[in-house]
Amino acid sequence: MTAWDRRNLLQLEGLSREDIVELLDAAERHVDAVRGKTPPRATLAGRIVANLFFEDSTRTRGSFAVAAHRLGAAVIDLSSAGSSVSKGETIVDTALTVEAMGVNAIVVRARPAGAAHLVAEAVAVPVINAGDGRHEHPTQGLLDLLTMRQHLGDMTGRIVAIVGDIANSRVARSNVHALTTIGAHVRLIGPPALVSGFFESVAAASAPGTVQVSHELDPVLPLVDVVMVLRVQFERDSDISADYHELFGLTAARAARLKPEAIVMHPGPMNRGLEIDSEVADDPTRSVIRTQVTNGVAVRMAVLELLLGGG
Amino acid sequence: MTAWDRRNLLQLEGLSREDIVELLDAAERHVDAVRGKTPPRATLAGRIVANLFFEDSTRTRGSFAVAAHRLGAAVIDLSSAGSSVSKGETIVDTALTVEAMGVNAIVVRARPAGAAHLVAEAVAVPVINAGDGRHEHPTQGLLDLLTMRQHLGDMTGRIVAIVGDIANSRVARSNVHALTTIGAHVRLIGPPALVSGFFESVAAASAPGTVQVSHELDPVLPLVDVVMVLRVQFERDSDISADYHELFGLTAARAARLKPEAIVMHPGPMNRGLEIDSEVADDPTRSVIRTQVTNGVAVRMAVLELLLGGG
Amino acid sequence: MTAWDRRNLLQLEGLSREDIVELLDAAERHVDAVRGKTPPRATLAGRIVANLFFEDSTRTRGSFAVAAHRLGAAVIDLSSAGSSVSKGETIVDTALTVEAMGVNAIVVRARPAGAAHLVAEAVAVPVINAGDGRHEHPTQGLLDLLTMRQHLGDMTGRIVAIVGDIANSRVARSNVHALTTIGAHVRLIGPPALVSGFFESVAAASAPGTVQVSHELDPVLPLVDVVMVLRVQFERDSDISADYHELFGLTAARAARLKPEAIVMHPGPMNRGLEIDSEVADDPTRSVIRTQVTNGVAVRMAVLELLLGGG
Repeated sequence: MTAWDRRNLLQLEGLSREDIVELLDAAERHVDAVRGKTPPRATLAGRIVANLFFEDSTRTRGSFAVAAHRLGAAVIDLSSAGSSVSKGETIVDTALTVEAMGVNAIVVRARPAGAAHLVAEAVAVPVINAGDGRHEHPTQGLLDLLTMRQHLGDMTGRIVAIVGDIANSRVARSNVHALTTIGAHVRLIGPPALVSGFFESVAAASAPGTVQVSHELDPVLPLVDVVMVLRVQFERDSDISADYHELFGLTAARAARLKPEAIVMHPGPMNRGLEIDSEVADDPTRSVIRTQVTNGVAVRMAVLELLLGGG
Repeated sequence: MTAWDRRNLLQLEGLSREDIVELLDAAERHVDAVRGKTPPRATLAGRIVANLFFEDSTRTRGSFAVAAHRLGAAVIDLSSAGSSVSKGETIVDTALTVEAMGVNAIVVRARPAGAAHLVAEAVAVPVINAGDGRHEHPTQGLLDLLTMRQHLGDMTGRIVAIVGDIANSRVARSNVHALTTIGAHVRLIGPPALVSGFFESVAAASAPGTVQVSHELDPVLPLVDVVMVLRVQFERDSDISADYHELFGLTAARAARLKPEAIVMHPGPMNRGLEIDSEVADDPTRSVIRTQVTNGVAVRMAVLELLLGGG
Repeated sequence: MTAWDRRNLLQLEGLSREDIVELLDAAERHVDAVRGKTPPRATLAGRIVANLFFEDSTRTRGSFAVAAHRLGAAVIDLSSAGSSVSKGETIVDTALTVEAMGVNAIVVRARPAGAAHLVAEAVAVPVINAGDGRHEHPTQGLLDLLTMRQHLGDMTGRIVAIVGDIANSRVARSNVHALTTIGAHVRLIGPPALVSGFFESVAAASAPGTVQVSHELDPVLPLVDVVMVLRVQFERDSDISADYHELFGLTAARAARLKPEAIVMHPGPMNRGLEIDSEVADDPTRSVIRTQVTNGVAVRMAVLELLLGGG
């Protein structure tokens, strides 16, 4: 756990509370531009951002592209199948090649945990981790926190339930680091096979009550301020049992047991009717799922500006 | 059949003659810019157009991208394989996500008929239908009509033969709506299995002589002003008989029986030697196939400007 | 072998020494911009470059895109799978369609040797060959030569070893034409099955000693100024023997036998441990592999400016 070097954004672990607040404040200043309420400022005109996605992702790749365009930067998309990687080149060699082309930042998503760190050690341009295996997805953690702060204000002492496949989730991991750093409490909830030893050890090591692991959703519902429903990743594990929806799905009946002001989040894409029901996902009073997407662009604009020296 | 709301372009059915003429006139004003004869005007600078293609298409996707770039807009391409859709997200959820990113327009192509309507009902930004199953492909209908008008002038009373797999063709459908609205006559020609009941009912319901269905090409040839040859879609139906070329292929011998001023059109991509022979496709006196492509960019520039409020 | 028409860049064969020097000098003037040392100049603002890649390629496609963006041009990417080509359209028809959209240049990569020539004969806009089968890859040849010139100065009389699958290599072919034109000597080294009759006939026809074919690497090492290691193309031939690394791999032991000032090149992507060992690829005193990538963008900027009339 090292302090943040401000050259790259590889993980939320190690960021101080001040770092996180600075990033959220910067992102907040871009929200109106994302919503089209204020004109864009081309602070990164003439820059080129490389989207280096070894796993495809409509929403994250598109979100970084929109963020770059809103700041006037061009985007090079190096995400297609049949790329150099499938020709046996290493991720680091591909990144070094992309850097040698003269791009100004590299946004990297790759399957191996730690891939973004390896890239950042190899290149001199700023690197942003857009998801590395089960490890972290820091801009997701920031956009989630920004969304919570917009709706709930200061998160100190607030309780956030993260529900689902915790073990495989970089989203959960980035959120745990960010939430505990800013003083929120976390409840990690999922079937035993999907809550890993890592998270149990985090829970054991954290201040009493800060991070708790549970395998039952229902008792927790009336206590929490946020329910973050994770996507069931059919691509990654086939262990999802037939009664997942019955045990962990966020149904309307379950949502009715939440506090009045509690909000519902999901990183998307949703499996409607599995981890979340449509009545809940589309509930305008609780669901902030679309706001998360908007905030995602604002966070990525802030990170790009901070790391590339614009603004 | 509803009047056009000018917020989206989802279909040509329901547009008035005045609507269509306005769109064609607007497109005509962009043709010189597409041909490089006049400098581009960046009326949509700072805007972002999302190409949301659930079916890939080199020409339509590229044409919208060129149109957006010519107007100074940026383009986000959300067309690649392995996208959220393949992860089980619905088309509407993907569109809502893209809208929440703050894009200024969504161009959508999808397999289900009606998909663009569903998207337009869900989002607030302008939606342009770039092809929804067998339903419509409105910018194709407009570019076809613009091309006819450039070569033949007023189309009132002119006769347009559409030849091929009528039943599965959104191109035919958009053309029938546009052509009958502006007063042209349509001959739908193809094997019985490929001319659907829908089009026979259109023919039965239209003013006498306006839309006629026929299963023979040869008798029609000397009568028509336009032959629009449809692409045989191997992807969609395997019913194309071995004698398709013999019965319906536009050969040089058949083209010789057309009126001197009659033009030949094809929406592309062509299967040379199947639905059209190269002598005809490449005949500079009759074939306007490349002009269709150029007009396609001009039409899309006009539609983007109209819906996004530029110009 | 025809003189260069300056309308397209299809091959290096036929270019004069003056043509090549002019291109290298123009590219050299862009190197500082690629490295971020000088601000970019938008000499091609308002232009659209079409990347028409029928074979995918992260590095070449990305390099042309970066080059276009650095000059202020927009890029249309028509490279994805499922494109018109897979629908049976010919390469030339696709190129004619892209031209009719009003793009200002077409960069084409395709599997058949001669594809770029066919495209250039059909369209009026400038065409740049980004690799056509085993034939040529002219911008690669230029970037290689630029890199050699930067490190070794005048190449007259210098000796360049090209090692590997010569027979299938468009990189080798473009380099042979460029190197012999500017007065360098070439040693083509590889297993007999991978050095084609074409190259043996080139060797036989060239001035004595200018181009020599050899099947042994070790005797050549102390004599050469450049070792250009080719990529083993698993995609193209399965004839690579188990002892390829032993016979032709550029190991640290082999590199130690090079002249002190000799440089090591590779067009990428590398198969580390097969045709080149990491100690050599990453040796900062000899390896110029990253510089090749940077020079690639500079060369493509120069070619785009020259052919599109910017600058």
